[in-house]
Amino acid sequence: MPVAAGSVRIFDTTLRDGEQAPGAGLTAAEKLEVARQLARLKVDVIEAGFPAASPGDFEAVNRIAREIKGGIAIAALARCRDGDPQRAIEAIKVAERPHLHVFIATSDIHLKHKLRIDRPTALAEAVKWVRHGRKALGRDAEIEFSAEDASRTDPDFLMEVYRAVVEAGASTVNIPDTVGYAIPSEFGALVGRVVAMVGSEATVSVHCHNDLGLATANTLAAVQAGARQVEVTINGLGERAGNASLEEVVMALRTRPTQFPELGSGVQTEHLTAASRLVSYLTGFAVQPNKAIVGGNAFAHESGIHQDGVIKNPLTYEIMTPQSVGLSGSSLTIGKLSGRKGLGGKLHDLGYDLEGETLDAIYRQAIALADAKKDVTDDDLIALVEARVAEVPQAVRLQGWNVTSSHGGNATGMVSLAVGDEDHAKAAIGNGPVDALFAAVDEALEPVLGWHPILETYEIKAVSGGEDAQGRVLVRCRRSTDVGPGALVVSGHGLSTNIIEASLDAYLVGVNKLHGAGVAGAAAGFVGRRTAQELP
Amino acid sequence: MPVAAGSVRIFDTTLRDGEQAPGAGLTAAEKLEVARQLARLKVDVIEAGFPAASPGDFEAVNRIAREIKGGIAIAALARCRDGDPQRAIEAIKVAERPHLHVFIATSDIHLKHKLRIDRPTALAEAVKWVRHGRKALGRDAEIEFSAEDASRTDPDFLMEVYRAVVEAGASTVNIPDTVGYAIPSEFGALVGRVVAMVGSEATVSVHCHNDLGLATANTLAAVQAGARQVEVTINGLGERAGNASLEEVVMALRTRPTQFPELGSGVQTEHLTAASRLVSYLTGFAVQPNKAIVGGNAFAHESGIHQDGVIKNPLTYEIMTPQSVGLSGSSLTIGKLSGRKGLGGKLHDLGYDLEGETLDAIYRQAIALADAKKDVTDDDLIALVEARVAEVPQAVRLQGWNVTSSHGGNATGMVSLAVGDEDHAKAAIGNGPVDALFAAVDEALEPVLGWHPILETYEIKAVSGGEDAQGRVLVRCRRSTDVGPGALVVSGHGLSTNIIEASLDAYLVGVNKLHGAGVAGAAAGFVGRRTAQELP
Repeated sequence: MPVAAGSVRIFDTTLRDGEQAPGAGLTAAEKLEVARQLARLKVDVIEAGFPAASPGDFEAVNRIAREIKGGIAIAALARCRDGDPQRAIEAIKVAERPHLHVFIATSDIHLKHKLRIDRPTALAEAVKWVRHGRKALGRDAEIEFSAEDASRTDPDFLMEVYRAVVEAGASTVNIPDTVGYAIPSEFGALVGRVVAMVGSEATVSVHCHNDLGLATANTLAAVQAGARQVEVTINGLGERAGNASLEEVVMALRTRPTQFPELGSGVQTEHLTAASRLVSYLTGFAVQPNKAIVGGNAFAHESGIHQDGVIKNPLTYEIMTPQSVGLSGSSLTIGKLSGRKGLGGKLHDLGYDLEGETLDAIYRQAIALADAKKDVTDDDLIALVEARVAEVPQAVRLQGWNVTSSHGGNATGMVSLAVGDEDHAKAAIGNGPVDALFAAVDEALEPVLGWHPILETYEIKAVSGGEDAQGRVLVRCRRSTDVGPGALVVSGHGLSTNIIEASLDAYLVGVNKLHGAGVAGAAAGFVGRRTAQELP
Repeated sequence: MPVAAGSVRIFDTTLRDGEQAPGAGLTAAEKLEVARQLARLKVDVIEAGFPAASPGDFEAVNRIAREIKGGIAIAALARCRDGDPQRAIEAIKVAERPHLHVFIATSDIHLKHKLRIDRPTALAEAVKWVRHGRKALGRDAEIEFSAEDASRTDPDFLMEVYRAVVEAGASTVNIPDTVGYAIPSEFGALVGRVVAMVGSEATVSVHCHNDLGLATANTLAAVQAGARQVEVTINGLGERAGNASLEEVVMALRTRPTQFPELGSGVQTEHLTAASRLVSYLTGFAVQPNKAIVGGNAFAHESGIHQDGVIKNPLTYEIMTPQSVGLSGSSLTIGKLSGRKGLGGKLHDLGYDLEGETLDAIYRQAIALADAKKDVTDDDLIALVEARVAEVPQAVRLQGWNVTSSHGGNATGMVSLAVGDEDHAKAAIGNGPVDALFAAVDEALEPVLGWHPILETYEIKAVSGGEDAQGRVLVRCRRSTDVGPGALVVSGHGLSTNIIEASLDAYLVGVNKLHGAGVAGAAAGFVGRRTAQELP
């Protein structure tokens, strides 16, 4: 479909390029949850994955293509080689608006060292698979072609490729700055040249990486040069230093209309904060306090000079309001909640629309939390909502535990686990209480499962201030039997006012995810990691 | 001093604008440690603080001005109002190269709502204090003038101001994008106009904020337009979404010489990673994994496509080498350390030059750590080094503790503290072990000190993978008697393979910092927070 006059098409690739960030892997269920949030944001295109990479990736893309409606296009990535585009088409053809995205590298360094083919071969493959996509999906579908490493490609050859793929049926041509190498002025000039050549026949798109901190700027320079699709991710997630950040690009278009005359996006910016939190939670990737738009300090002022100005007139230092990105300034004490309905309204203000059983469950948890800690804050409520997002089947369940630890000595811990109908209890010692209890879990599980989890990441953050705060634990782990760079690494979260309990919960979420992946494989929704072996 | 031909002057404001980020406050000793690291990096100017803000800030700037040599200029900020420039001059006049930085807002919104003065008054004050600075510091000193909110100032008035201050003796004119509002193309045009007007008589400088994610791009656009000083911070630290990031600007200049012909900086980029870690550690501000240059994933590759390319030729996806920013790829097992000397060499490779007693202490700790955990990694060593950076006098010392906790019940903990010659032991219950022990600390201290700490932040991160990893705890706390937005909030770190021990250590560092601030105030080196009351 053509881009509406006066708007920039927002192509979100959080679930494809974003999810490629090492350690950010998501299950299919988690990907679907992110897709739902992207639908709430009203992005134009969701790139859901790379179906040829693994059966799990195919399944995730296909589920999103089946479920997400409302005029949002669902894109899938494919290399220009036999098998890839077919799998991608198979995964997305059920979508309301399928959007096929084929790519091949065009820079000499990639052609020579990675693909080991010459320019004419690359050009022929590009044309072949664009034509294939157009034929398979029909004249109304979106067929996008990307020239990987475009910013380091010989410009004349690049133009030849774009010209040829548009003639072969591509409706969008994408210019990726794959290695994050471009400077805005030169990138704008390159984009302008492509727009001048094929802009009347196809939408010109850009995809910028952030290796020099310039992804957002390059994307905006491209829009000023005539690009009308931008490929972006929530929180700037992505390989290495990530991609252009959706929230930065969208808010720049909105905040500076004189610089982008009659250009904007349809994104509902008041859902940005909730989207950022969800992606950060599910991937376990923190957003730094000084991240633009969605960082914890983005709307906070410290220096006396600034405080004073902001008190006198917010416009002295704020060019956007916190409300415009969905930041609610208020805090909450649970006593003031007028029951379940009040909670629903409060959560709505925070960007979460819950009802029925889910709302009931959160309400019960909030009431219980109010017994355990003095003040229940907005952050506490958000943590409760997020904890429900990534639930997994509990093949292994925690029955009980205890631990003692003291100055200078080892800690001693006991856990009791239920695996199916059987109870397994073990005691162990460790450097500290968490180490001791995790060791007890390992000892209990090894004889039953034939493996135990290996911990790769362990983090706790208090959800709010105060000594009685809820602790949120993140772990990443893999199976002891699964080694090497292709090993499946899963994340697990736990939330409790007792950090030991939260730690055990998180560890067992990891165990259950790893167990599910082992039992049912891709069918259980695990998006397998890609390895160098799988993708030459 | 004029900028050398063919180079961009790197003006680091981590200790001034960076440290204004809410929650990033540093003690004078910590500021000095950062200044030493900036000297290792070989920045051209260190903006050390805002001496008129508080006696603590004055003291910190003055200590840095006395200690840091090697041709690095030391800058201090001052408003254009009686008292400020005098204090700034007093603080920096001992420096090898004093650099006075005076500013006044020039945009109508700031003049009207914050300063409540008209344009001619602002212009007269600017000229007056530039002239004062030139007279006080002599003809060789650097006198810099900033027009706050320049990017929202009427351009004609802005030019009038810059013209006048250069005539009054300013050797540098700075163009701040105070609210992070500018877009690179327009900002470059503005800078070009200033360069054309006064560029032959003064150095043109820029200071960009990151509210729309464009600080680095605006800074580079300014360099392309003729700016020859850039004001930047490590990790992009700063108020709200922060400032332009030193590492991004410096690495862009270095990586793209054809875009910045004959322009570079004297920064020793192989110290960037150590500088980033130090600032992150001392401020407690995490660097997100996808942060350009210094993020944990900045040089990591996940997707099969990328892995494959990087294995075949790193240049396919890497435009910089990890070594160029001081990232060592190697890991280490302590058994392989050939004693104390081997450790010194290893630490040197990681960007830390230690000797004498400090190296001995780290060596002893590393050997002890090798008993407690299987593998001692680079990250473990860095954590040991960093833990020594922010040591504080121990008025309150931990003597002993124990704790028990179990599923579904409260935790019970006991701590024994030494305060001066007296022992104070208390037991308490809590939701979890840390809550119980912190409550016991509170109960033990309240009768002795008249206050107890209030916890505002609590975070743990495992330093490396594995269940036996060291946990590093960060707390932020204030005194229970100190409330409101002006309250002194301090951070404390703890490091141990037992997370309970690390938590108590961190809490007591916080207690001792708060106690030191109470006993000796600014003289103990505490840089007091600025409040709206202090600075109208």
